[in-house]
Formats: sequence, structure tokens, C-alpha cells
Amino acid sequence: MASYLEQNQQRFLTELIDWLRIPSVSADPKFHGDVLRAAEYLKARFLEVGLENVELCPTAGNPIVYGEKIIDPALPTVLVYGHYDVQPADPYELWDSPPFEPVIKDEKIYARGACDDKGQVYMHVKALEVMNQDGGLPCNIKVMIEGEEEIGSNNLGIFVRANKEKLKADVILISDTGMLANDEPSIEVGLRGLSYHEVEVTGPNRDLHSGLYGGAVANPINVLCKMIASLHDENNHITIPDFYNNVAVLTDEERAELNRVPHSDDEFKKSIGLPDTYGEKGYTTVERIGIRPTLDVNGIWGGYTGEGAKTVIASKAYAKISMRLVPHQTSDEITALFQKHFESIAPSGVTVVVKPHHGGEPVVTPTDSVAYKAAADAMETTFGKRPIPTRGGGSIPIVAMFKSELGLDTVLLGFGLDSDAIHSPNEHYGVFNFLKGIETIPHFYRNYAAAMQG
Amino acid sequence: MASYLEQNQQRFLTELIDWLRIPSVSADPKFHGDVLRAAEYLKARFLEVGLENVELCPTAGNPIVYGEKIIDPALPTVLVYGHYDVQPADPYELWDSPPFEPVIKDEKIYARGACDDKGQVYMHVKALEVMNQDGGLPCNIKVMIEGEEEIGSNNLGIFVRANKEKLKADVILISDTGMLANDEPSIEVGLRGLSYHEVEVTGPNRDLHSGLYGGAVANPINVLCKMIASLHDENNHITIPDFYNNVAVLTDEERAELNRVPHSDDEFKKSIGLPDTYGEKGYTTVERIGIRPTLDVNGIWGGYTGEGAKTVIASKAYAKISMRLVPHQTSDEITALFQKHFESIAPSGVTVVVKPHHGGEPVVTPTDSVAYKAAADAMETTFGKRPIPTRGGGSIPIVAMFKSELGLDTVLLGFGLDSDAIHSPNEHYGVFNFLKGIETIPHFYRNYAAAMQG
Repeated sequence: MASYLEQNQQRFLTELIDWLRIPSVSADPKFHGDVLRAAEYLKARFLEVGLENVELCPTAGNPIVYGEKIIDPALPTVLVYGHYDVQPADPYELWDSPPFEPVIKDEKIYARGACDDKGQVYMHVKALEVMNQDGGLPCNIKVMIEGEEEIGSNNLGIFVRANKEKLKADVILISDTGMLANDEPSIEVGLRGLSYHEVEVTGPNRDLHSGLYGGAVANPINVLCKMIASLHDENNHITIPDFYNNVAVLTDEERAELNRVPHSDDEFKKSIGLPDTYGEKGYTTVERIGIRPTLDVNGIWGGYTGEGAKTVIASKAYAKISMRLVPHQTSDEITALFQKHFESIAPSGVTVVVKPHHGGEPVVTPTDSVAYKAAADAMETTFGKRPIPTRGGGSIPIVAMFKSELGLDTVLLGFGLDSDAIHSPNEHYGVFNFLKGIETIPHFYRNYAAAMQG
Repeated sequence: MASYLEQNQQRFLTELIDWLRIPSVSADPKFHGDVLRAAEYLKARFLEVGLENVELCPTAGNPIVYGEKIIDPALPTVLVYGHYDVQPADPYELWDSPPFEPVIKDEKIYARGACDDKGQVYMHVKALEVMNQDGGLPCNIKVMIEGEEEIGSNNLGIFVRANKEKLKADVILISDTGMLANDEPSIEVGLRGLSYHEVEVTGPNRDLHSGLYGGAVANPINVLCKMIASLHDENNHITIPDFYNNVAVLTDEERAELNRVPHSDDEFKKSIGLPDTYGEKGYTTVERIGIRPTLDVNGIWGGYTGEGAKTVIASKAYAKISMRLVPHQTSDEITALFQKHFESIAPSGVTVVVKPHHGGEPVVTPTDSVAYKAAADAMETTFGKRPIPTRGGGSIPIVAMFKSELGLDTVLLGFGLDSDAIHSPNEHYGVFNFLKGIETIPHFYRNYAAAMQG
């Protein structure tokens, strides 16, 4: 006989698609109304599946959707975190179908937020519905779904500090990461931190004609390129003084263990269409992504960027530059080092302003905890294969904050794939992954509740 | 008694302002209708001042406005060249008044094209009217005003080659340059050439999440910055192999003569708001602008450039890069050298495409010709001061083409100032300069006609 999940999967997908239609882009003020609509939609769904005290908690920015179901104060409590905001969808012209008109194609849901993170959050909503039909909840559950993750979670820390009692729990559960493959389940146990900056280089006080002035004034675009180029040496080491001071050095054994994850450079290159791997000398691709800090320019602009040719020397040039951090670097430390260094390498004749955006701390989550084992067992049950612990490259800055503010460890039970194109055009999420998540999450609760009481 | 020019100057200004209202931006297809309207307006004004055979000559692009007045085939003929198209006006928000709603403020006309080149072309229209009222034309005059100068004059060469008989003349007269100051008249005798390129660097086949991939793939923005930075060495010499092979080397005497022009580095720095001069080691500011080739990035873009933060590794990054050339470099030579070098410095793992835009040849115009002397004498009459011959930094690519195709030298009788902000927000043209041009041009014709017959 078909399970409740099997009988209702079409409706679950339809509900998710309705939610994905709402363009909850937090980075762009013009979508502010949609962000609020997405929060309201989620609140209504949590109420439907029996959560109590569901509310939109106001912040200085977007509201946090909170809800809870306390079945017995003596039982353990799991606090689920996720986010309902999404990345900007531009460039729109590179999407095969519009980002906010979701379609299912080749068993994948295509839409901005399909995987990151609305699709993964919605697994939790529907896991609650499934449990209601199948023995009820085995422990207490709280949910806290924010609307500013893609712009740095600036108000979440304030909310958490102000609501420590309300958020009291035994462990944090987050589905906002990926696994190696649909037949290779894995659980992230290491996450890189983030230090993100916008830099502005000003040369002359106005745009100049390159014919009349070229060669005799500092061109801010050329200067910015030179400054950025100098941030890496010929081995792709980062040149900011003291940048590597606090980087955790792994033992040979730890590096060998890390490199045991199934990884093929050939497949990696093929998947992104590059003829060669690239990166810091002396490290494998897995190590470059997992245990080494990096620096990337995420955006650059200046001068004339339209059709045709304009012979201008711009007054200003800009870039967005971010660094991924590893234990035991801290966001504050690296932000200060970057700012100081970047200002110091400006040639005389130009003005440089560094504006730090949000940051986040690198974390390693334990693999010997009750919660990690409950998650690994759950995946083993539903995938038929023991998941591998991996150290991914992304940042979920709030994991470190939950540890410091609430004293709680996190389990990163994510079902995305690297190929889901999150933050890119044609973001998608496998129907298999969405349903497998809904199937796996109840096992986690049962395993965790049983082990905590046992 | 007030002269005809004094009596009519208000109307002359009003007519120019009406023309400046038409946004004849050739680089952007959305202004195509306006470009044609600007050509029609000019045609009507040429007819009003008595030119004959006035027509819009079709080309593969924008039409060329042609007209002529042959008073006697035995007299010498002057061919006036100019352009009615203008640079794009963006960024609009940096204009104090809208670029296509001209205003006169502090005795200056503010509008895109006020100086470059509609204002200077219109001086020639009104100089014809003034001469009609004051003894008539002293020689034959032909006018050829094109609509594609700001996008490379791609169709002018074709037109000139196809119409050599029609364009037969003794000298070319162009007002599309500047002078040192209103009390320091000067005439450009050296112009730099141009080689302009758009480059595209492709890394991964799609935008990637910098957390998941950062450190393990070639980021095309970082790569582009590194490639651009490598184009200059620590002395600001250009590093493209063979780039300087054909650069004309001036003697010590020639350099000393060149540096005699009134120039103050302090005033230069102040005028553009920079604390230091900048440029190729071993050369003065005047030399850097006048006799040395340069390389500038005119625009750069890639990745996320909107509000807030997006942790993306872009698939592509772009730049517009141009080089100003000096005698005896050629545009074709430098374009080939740049293309080959820029492709050769791409690291493995990225794809680089170099698309050459238009080019132009550097020229030096003679100072011992009848036409140059006629222009210098005209300026001396109206300014009360002998003009200084200067080598400016801009390019008027068609000057070399007129020499090779029509065998004609050019006189660059320009009335703009460096501070006119051409190609920039708040472009303007002094009312003094506009009227002084109308006053000076008839003297040129009379001097030239007299000397050629004498």
C-alpha cells in the first residue's frame, strides 16, 4: 500500500511551487512586499500542520517565522532553522524558464529558491504533516525560518540574543546544504566562514576623455585591477599579511581521511566546463574547497559598459570581494586585515574606500554526537547506504552564532546537489531529493528522541 | 555699430540649443530616429545659409550631410569635416541638468554635444551666414558632416573612396579639438591614434556559488584583473611585446620645444582633483599626453553588481580596453599585437576572446603650410595673440584617412577647452568660444583664399 507521502507527493510539490512563485529576493528593496508574502505563506502552512504560537516576529529587517509544538516538556527539543528569502535571479536572460514561474522538467523543479532554501525548508513543513499521520511527533519541535540569510542574517543574532528562553532546545537542525550524489548520501561537518566587502577606487574627480588625459592620470579601473591582481601570488596563495596566521593545519592523517571522499577531478572539470583545475598550489581540489581559505571577486564594474565604444577614463571603479574562511580564522579578524591591507596598497593619486558587508564564522560540527548519529542513521535507513561526513565549501554563518549564543550544536541534514545551480540561473531541486528529505526527516526525529531518552 | 554677429548672437545660440535637444547618440540603437532627425535639422540649416546640392548621403550606417558652394572653379576649395553624432550621456544621474535639455549657465551651454562636436559644427554654419552678409564667400566651400564619429567612423572611409571627385578640395578644415585657454589660443598639430577592444574572459560554464567552488576554479574576474594588471610594468611602461617598436623618438630639442607650452602640473592636478600626477616614468605630463602611447581600461564588468552581497563566481568577465597611438604606430599593427598578446597571457582553464572595435591612425599636421598659417593668422586677428602649436592626446582617426585617400592635409581649428568635460557628465561649451569660432572662421577663409591666389 502506498504511504501517506506517496499518496500526497503531487500536492506537496504543488504547494512548494506556489511558494516558489513568490519572488522573495531579500537583496533588492523592490521585492520587499513579496518577501513579506512569502513569510505569510509559510506561516499559514505551519499552522495547517499543527504548529502552535506561529507568528511573524518583527526585526529591523524582514520578519522571522517562528512556530513550535511542545508535546511534553520532558522530551528533547529540536530547533529547525532555515530561510525563506532567495538570491537575486539576474541575469534573467540566462534562465531557460523564468525564475519565478516554476516548472518541473526531467524530474527537477526549476525556480529561484527551489533548493536554496525554500525547497529544503518545505521538506520540514511536510515532514511534520507526514508525522502527524504516522504516530505523531516523537519530540518537541521549534521552527525559526528567517528572511535575510542571503543578505547576511544581520538581524537574526539580535533576535536570538533577545529570545534565548523561547528558543531553548537541545540541537539545531538545518537543511541548507548538499550531499555528494543521490546514491552517495553525505552530511556536511565543516563549513567555511565569510568576510565580504565592497571596494571603491576613485581617481579623477569626474569622467575624463581618454584621448586628452590618457597616460597622465591614474585610471581607477587599471588601478583596481592591479590591486586585485596583487592579492594572490604566483602559487595562488593570498598575499594579505597575517591572513593565514590562524588557519587550522590538518595532520597528514586528517588530510588523507578528507581525500577519501569520492571525487574525480575529471568529472569536476567536466561538470563546470573547464579544461583544468585551478587553485592554491600544494592542495587537492577537495582540500581547496574544504580546508583552505580563499579570496574571490564576486562582481566588478566601472566606466562604460554599454554597446559600442566610449573613450572614457572613469572617475570610479568598484568591486565586491569576498573571502571564505576556515577554522580558526574569524570574520572580524580577516575583515580588519583585508581592510587595512587593501587601503595600504592603493597607489598615491587614488582614494580607496572599503565597506565591509556581512561576515560569518567557519565551523566544524561534531561527528560523534547523538544528533549526528541520529541523522546518519536516518539517511542510512532511507538511502540504504551510510552517509559520508564531508567538509563543504559554503558558509552558513549562523551555525557558529547558534553555538556561541545558544550553546547548541547543529546537524546539517541537507539534500541538495552541487549541480543544483544555487545562486545561478536555472537553479533547480530534484523531485527525488525533495521527497527523500520528507521521508528522512521523521526518521531523524525518532532516532534522536529515542537516543536522548535511552 | 554692432557687427552682424553681435546683432544675431542670441538667435545663433537658440538655433544651436534646438539642435542639441535632439539626442543623436550613435552608439545606442534606441536613438536611431533622433540621429536621423539631427541630420535633417543640419541639412535644413545648410540650405538656409545658401549651400547647394545639400543632401543626406546614405551609408550602411548613419547618413553623411553633404553640401557645397562653388563660387568659381578657379578659386581654392576648403572641405569642412565634422560630426553631428554625440557620445552616450550616461550616467545621467551625474548631470546637474538633463543632457538633452540644454541650459546656459555662467556663460556656458550645458548639453551632450555642446562642444563635441555639434557646437563646433554649428560655428561653421553660422560663419557661412556671417560671410554672406559681409562680402560673400572668398573661396569654394564643401561640407561633409558625418553621424558615426563616436562609434568609429566605419562608413566614412567607404564614402570618401567612392566620392573622390565630389570631395575634391585643397585642404580639410575641422573644428573638433581644443585650445589651451581662452586667452591662450593654440592649434593642435599632433593627434594620437586609437586601437579599441572588447575582451571577454570565460571561466566556468555557468555562474557558481563561491562557497561551494571558491578556491578550486579559475574566477574570470580575478583572471581578467591579473591580465590587465600585467599590461603595465612598475614604471607604467606597456608590456605588450614590440608595442614601442615604431614609436617616433623625439630629439632633445623637439622635447624641449614641446615642453615650452604653458602647463602647470599643480593646476593640472587641481583641475581633476588628484593629489599626484601619474604615468610613464621618464616623461612629463605634456609628453605623456602628447608623444607617448598609452593603454587604458575604459570599462569593466562581470558578476554581481547590484545592491548588497551575492556570493557568486561569475562565468564571464568583460572589459573595454583602448590604446592611444603615436607616430609611427599604426592601428592595424597595434590591434594585432594586442590581440595576440592578450590571448597569450590567458592562464589555462579560461577562454579569452578579443573583439577589436574601431581604430584610428596617429597624425602630425604640418605647421609650415599655407592653411596652417591662414588659421594661425585668423586666430591672431580675433584673439590678439599668436596661437601655439600643440600636440594633443585625442584621436581624430579620419585625419590620417583624408591624407591617404584624398591626399589632403588638415587644419584643426578647434575652440574647445580641456575643461569642457566632453565624453563626461556636464559637457559644456563656452558662449565666448562658440562666438569666437564664428568670428574666426571667416578670417581663415579670407587668409587662405588670398594666400592661395597670391
